[in-house]
Amino acid sequence: MFLSIILAAGEGTRMKSKLPKVMHSICGKPLLSHVINVSKASGIDKNIVVVGHGGNIVREKIKENVQFVEQPVGEGVPYGTGFAVMQAKDYIEDNSCVVILYGDTPLITSDTLTKLIEFHKKGDYEGTVLSADFNDPAGYGRIIRDNAGNVTAIVEHKDASDEEKGIKEINSGIYCFNGKSLKLALENLDNNNAQNEYYITDAIKILNELGFTIGGYKIRDNEEIAGINSRIQLAEAEKIMRKRINNKHMINGITIINPDNTYIDSEVAIERDTIIYPGAIIEGNTRIGEDCIIGHNSRIVNCKIGDRVDIQMSTIIESKIDDDSHIGPYAYIRPNSEIGKNVKIGDFVEVKNSKVDDNSKASHLSYIGDAYVGKGVNIGCGTVFVNYDGKNKHKTIVQDNAFIGCNVNLIAPVEVEEGAYVAAGSTITDKVPKKSLSIARARQVNKGDWVEKKGLIK
Amino acid sequence: MFLSIILAAGEGTRMKSKLPKVMHSICGKPLLSHVINVSKASGIDKNIVVVGHGGNIVREKIKENVQFVEQPVGEGVPYGTGFAVMQAKDYIEDNSCVVILYGDTPLITSDTLTKLIEFHKKGDYEGTVLSADFNDPAGYGRIIRDNAGNVTAIVEHKDASDEEKGIKEINSGIYCFNGKSLKLALENLDNNNAQNEYYITDAIKILNELGFTIGGYKIRDNEEIAGINSRIQLAEAEKIMRKRINNKHMINGITIINPDNTYIDSEVAIERDTIIYPGAIIEGNTRIGEDCIIGHNSRIVNCKIGDRVDIQMSTIIESKIDDDSHIGPYAYIRPNSEIGKNVKIGDFVEVKNSKVDDNSKASHLSYIGDAYVGKGVNIGCGTVFVNYDGKNKHKTIVQDNAFIGCNVNLIAPVEVEEGAYVAAGSTITDKVPKKSLSIARARQVNKGDWVEKKGLIK
Amino acid sequence: MFLSIILAAGEGTRMKSKLPKVMHSICGKPLLSHVINVSKASGIDKNIVVVGHGGNIVREKIKENVQFVEQPVGEGVPYGTGFAVMQAKDYIEDNSCVVILYGDTPLITSDTLTKLIEFHKKGDYEGTVLSADFNDPAGYGRIIRDNAGNVTAIVEHKDASDEEKGIKEINSGIYCFNGKSLKLALENLDNNNAQNEYYITDAIKILNELGFTIGGYKIRDNEEIAGINSRIQLAEAEKIMRKRINNKHMINGITIINPDNTYIDSEVAIERDTIIYPGAIIEGNTRIGEDCIIGHNSRIVNCKIGDRVDIQMSTIIESKIDDDSHIGPYAYIRPNSEIGKNVKIGDFVEVKNSKVDDNSKASHLSYIGDAYVGKGVNIGCGTVFVNYDGKNKHKTIVQDNAFIGCNVNLIAPVEVEEGAYVAAGSTITDKVPKKSLSIARARQVNKGDWVEKKGLIK
Repeated sequence: MFLSIILAAGEGTRMKSKLPKVMHSICGKPLLSHVINVSKASGIDKNIVVVGHGGNIVREKIKENVQFVEQPVGEGVPYGTGFAVMQAKDYIEDNSCVVILYGDTPLITSDTLTKLIEFHKKGDYEGTVLSADFNDPAGYGRIIRDNAGNVTAIVEHKDASDEEKGIKEINSGIYCFNGKSLKLALENLDNNNAQNEYYITDAIKILNELGFTIGGYKIRDNEEIAGINSRIQLAEAEKIMRKRINNKHMINGITIINPDNTYIDSEVAIERDTIIYPGAIIEGNTRIGEDCIIGHNSRIVNCKIGDRVDIQMSTIIESKIDDDSHIGPYAYIRPNSEIGKNVKIGDFVEVKNSKVDDNSKASHLSYIGDAYVGKGVNIGCGTVFVNYDGKNKHKTIVQDNAFIGCNVNLIAPVEVEEGAYVAAGSTITDKVPKKSLSIARARQVNKGDWVEKKGLIK
Repeated sequence: MFLSIILAAGEGTRMKSKLPKVMHSICGKPLLSHVINVSKASGIDKNIVVVGHGGNIVREKIKENVQFVEQPVGEGVPYGTGFAVMQAKDYIEDNSCVVILYGDTPLITSDTLTKLIEFHKKGDYEGTVLSADFNDPAGYGRIIRDNAGNVTAIVEHKDASDEEKGIKEINSGIYCFNGKSLKLALENLDNNNAQNEYYITDAIKILNELGFTIGGYKIRDNEEIAGINSRIQLAEAEKIMRKRINNKHMINGITIINPDNTYIDSEVAIERDTIIYPGAIIEGNTRIGEDCIIGHNSRIVNCKIGDRVDIQMSTIIESKIDDDSHIGPYAYIRPNSEIGKNVKIGDFVEVKNSKVDDNSKASHLSYIGDAYVGKGVNIGCGTVFVNYDGKNKHKTIVQDNAFIGCNVNLIAPVEVEEGAYVAAGSTITDKVPKKSLSIARARQVNKGDWVEKKGLIK
Repeated sequence: MFLSIILAAGEGTRMKSKLPKVMHSICGKPLLSHVINVSKASGIDKNIVVVGHGGNIVREKIKENVQFVEQPVGEGVPYGTGFAVMQAKDYIEDNSCVVILYGDTPLITSDTLTKLIEFHKKGDYEGTVLSADFNDPAGYGRIIRDNAGNVTAIVEHKDASDEEKGIKEINSGIYCFNGKSLKLALENLDNNNAQNEYYITDAIKILNELGFTIGGYKIRDNEEIAGINSRIQLAEAEKIMRKRINNKHMINGITIINPDNTYIDSEVAIERDTIIYPGAIIEGNTRIGEDCIIGHNSRIVNCKIGDRVDIQMSTIIESKIDDDSHIGPYAYIRPNSEIGKNVKIGDFVEVKNSKVDDNSKASHLSYIGDAYVGKGVNIGCGTVFVNYDGKNKHKTIVQDNAFIGCNVNLIAPVEVEEGAYVAAGSTITDKVPKKSLSIARARQVNKGDWVEKKGLIK
């Protein structure tokens, strides 16, 4: 049985934030969620999150299926990673394999965790430290190994001899323990140190003294174990994660013009030969098909985009765009919209909570709200679907092959039937029957002497 | 006589693309086009492109004047660079100077090719290898030179002795040959190797064995010989090319606020003291004058922009903007438009296939399509040039000094004569005579009890 | 008494510009202004700017309180930094502490200047050189120190012995002098050198020969003393300054998703837990409150933004946005606008010189110009505040809780009274009384046979 204990109780004072540190986000997801997802992806099915500062916020906002336990924080309460792990001890079974993780170390990968666990199992260790070689190890705990390569101690920098200070292998703080041994170690932890804190690091020393064998698994990519303590580190972690995500898509056959300036959340899926221009932001669980163009600075949130869709400089939220459609530039598609195949939603057009069916066009300066627009419809420039009467929202239906002229108001609830025409400048309040023309406007009158009389001649 | 043979037959499986590798683009142009242009710029007038995988796509899309030859690909057909060069042998004349290039190596410069050819000629070599010093040469063929500095062999990494592995000078794969010698070498190439491929590299060995002298010209900037095999490398090459282009403009007196985030195609010309803000994309053969401001995230494609033009956050395609005009923010100027001097095309305005003459204004929320707008015209907010009747597009003419009120429809074909006024909210279907006012709207009626009766009082 | 002499007379030919070099900007401010501000921030109250090429432009555009002196430039006039400093000699008092700075070295910090002056005072030096260790010092003057650490000479690269060339400590060109000694040195400067220039560097030699003690204060961050001579260096300096500014904000508790692509002028103030998305440009003396979201590619110039304001992809110039309001995407708020609390200014909406009071909405495709819009007002889609009659601009007033339908024109001057309704499609020219409905449109007529008769059936 695999268990993680994810420490997420810290306040993170250097973040200077009302939000607990682990709830700050990179690539669209809280730090803690990244860690939980990595843990799950590496096969750890039970995940205990130890919360403290801002624990209610963490419990409320984390949607992943985890078990929360509370670490008491405040005056007179013990501190330290060891004390945090103790809060989870009821969940530790003798035969479980327990991985200790940190809610502020989101760059760890499931590949590394999987290998750590394998290494731990294969070597038959009671505990295994995830270590790394640092060129500049100053400040970090050093890994002391015996001739067999087993870890005999972790020496804190301040306690290290000159020889020990020469060691470049450091302790990441991530461990894998056998449940029974971890519990034994926790029972023996003390806080007799300058800081009066319980350190989980001491578990290694304790188990060593009890004669258990401790392994040390060294990672290659040191970026994985970087903890986040400030907004500068948050931006750095975001950059690393961004690069990983973008590399993944490029390897899969997506062209990204400038990966340093393309922002794709970790869950997004994109099919090959789609091209993404600079400044695009693709969020949530968006799916994008083949051969699409995602134009510069487009923002797409939780959408399903078909194949060969061309999106220029537009914002699309929680909607579906079908194959071969053209969006933008400067279109805004709001939630719950569905754009059919080969549709054009052009510049300065807003669509909200509407379906626009195949082969229809709203080329410019229109608002389509709370509507069904059929197939082959043309929505003229400046046309407004008047869905709000000051009190309620109503629905408009425009049937197939209708033609709505420019600067028209369709006052919902209203229907324009199949093949009907609405003349430019009309405000339509009643049903427009099939194949008829509807017109609602005044006649043009020219007043020949007006400009001169008004003294407006240039 | 100068000849290039550009190898462009590869599939590029790591690109994971339906497109042949050499047709992927950086800085707005296919990789292959970059190579062809560099070859031409270095004075090579005849360019043979050897196509294979996706050859029909390459032939169709490459607009540069080159000679295509087909390399058979598929089951049972020989492989290798040597086999590719053989396909072009009919074009090789005895006295030609033949440069071997690669369609996936777009960063090579004409300066380097020119120097390579000079070196080749000056040294009276039969063949010359373009080489480079690599800090980490593992995997590359090493250049073996004699005491005179001539190249005596190229040893593949796998065949290299330990001493040879210490050599840091590597083979770029780019060569210059005398035609007669190259043909001689091609006749002697064989594919008696593990991969059963013909290697053009063997030409060096063959010519050496025949007693010919081979030169080695070493480049300084190793970036030039980077081949592209994946989308990650494509993005890296784009970044290098982008930097080169932006440096060129900065040296010429253009301010680029953030060159890492400014995207200018290689053919674009810009005059001094123009300032380009971050995220701008300038494509095709765009020309921009002096003292312009190209605002952040503007996209300009194949345009001619005058002097002192201020473009904010707008998209301009295949159009002309004359001096001192202001565009945007959020304007969209579509193909075949011509904006005069000192014109304002403001926010949320689309212009399409129209001329807007000097000193006119369309400040906001308008659509001008298929129109001529004269000098000193004011187009009111929300005004639409209704150019489409559901069947055909028609033209609108607005003569000098006319004033078109807000939310007006001009139903084309229609003309507003000089100095005429159109009242706000009018739909105009007939000519508006010179200096007259045209109005087409209903009178205002106030219903005093309506709000209370409707129960709408807040 | 503290004095700076800032040399700003150079032409900067490599900039290829009509503008004098020191007037080119980074992070929204001329290079020279950065230097002046740093000087002032380090406690130097009197700042002398020596102008020459383009001196009139400098005098006109620099708004900081400084004293300009003119350095003659042109044929037959002496050259050199020494000659430039001489122009300011009337301002040098015997007991002043004089710092020599350069208008093209904008990355120097007030922290460094403060420490330089402290070092100078504490060491009781007559002159102090600001120095730096360069890994590659070639081309720079080397600092020669005696055993006591005092500077005995500055040897130009071309005059340096092999041993001296090995020295990595170089002269930044920035100095601190006691006034009396500086004047003494200036009197003894000569231009008997190959270039016929007066060099301020010679002041060190002169003072040394007179037996005065010269200090050398070495900075840690070599970026600070980088001079700008080309647009490439301008972009590099901008990048360094951008990083400094963004780091400052991140340390203060602001999240910046991509600091490499976020552009904040140096005077901007932002409160904690605000999040800034990529491509945002925040200019001038903008103030932004807590918990705001500044969406990607927004541009905000000289604005005051409250708390919890959400701005998406919009442009806001010289305006005020109060707490909890939502702006954009694609909104344009022009100067002198005031947006109240909890207001929505949505997509494709322009506001100009208007106040929109609390809880009001203009959700899409509207223009509000020269208006007062009260509380709880709804402005329908496509509605235009017609503020311009072709001659003058007029004001519109919409009182609290009014409801303006879609595609309405409000022809200013006009007032819509409290709680009144305006029907969609109406052009309003006269006052709309309290709680009444105003309507101005034609009745709808349906013509059943029209589409067929016109031959428009699809």
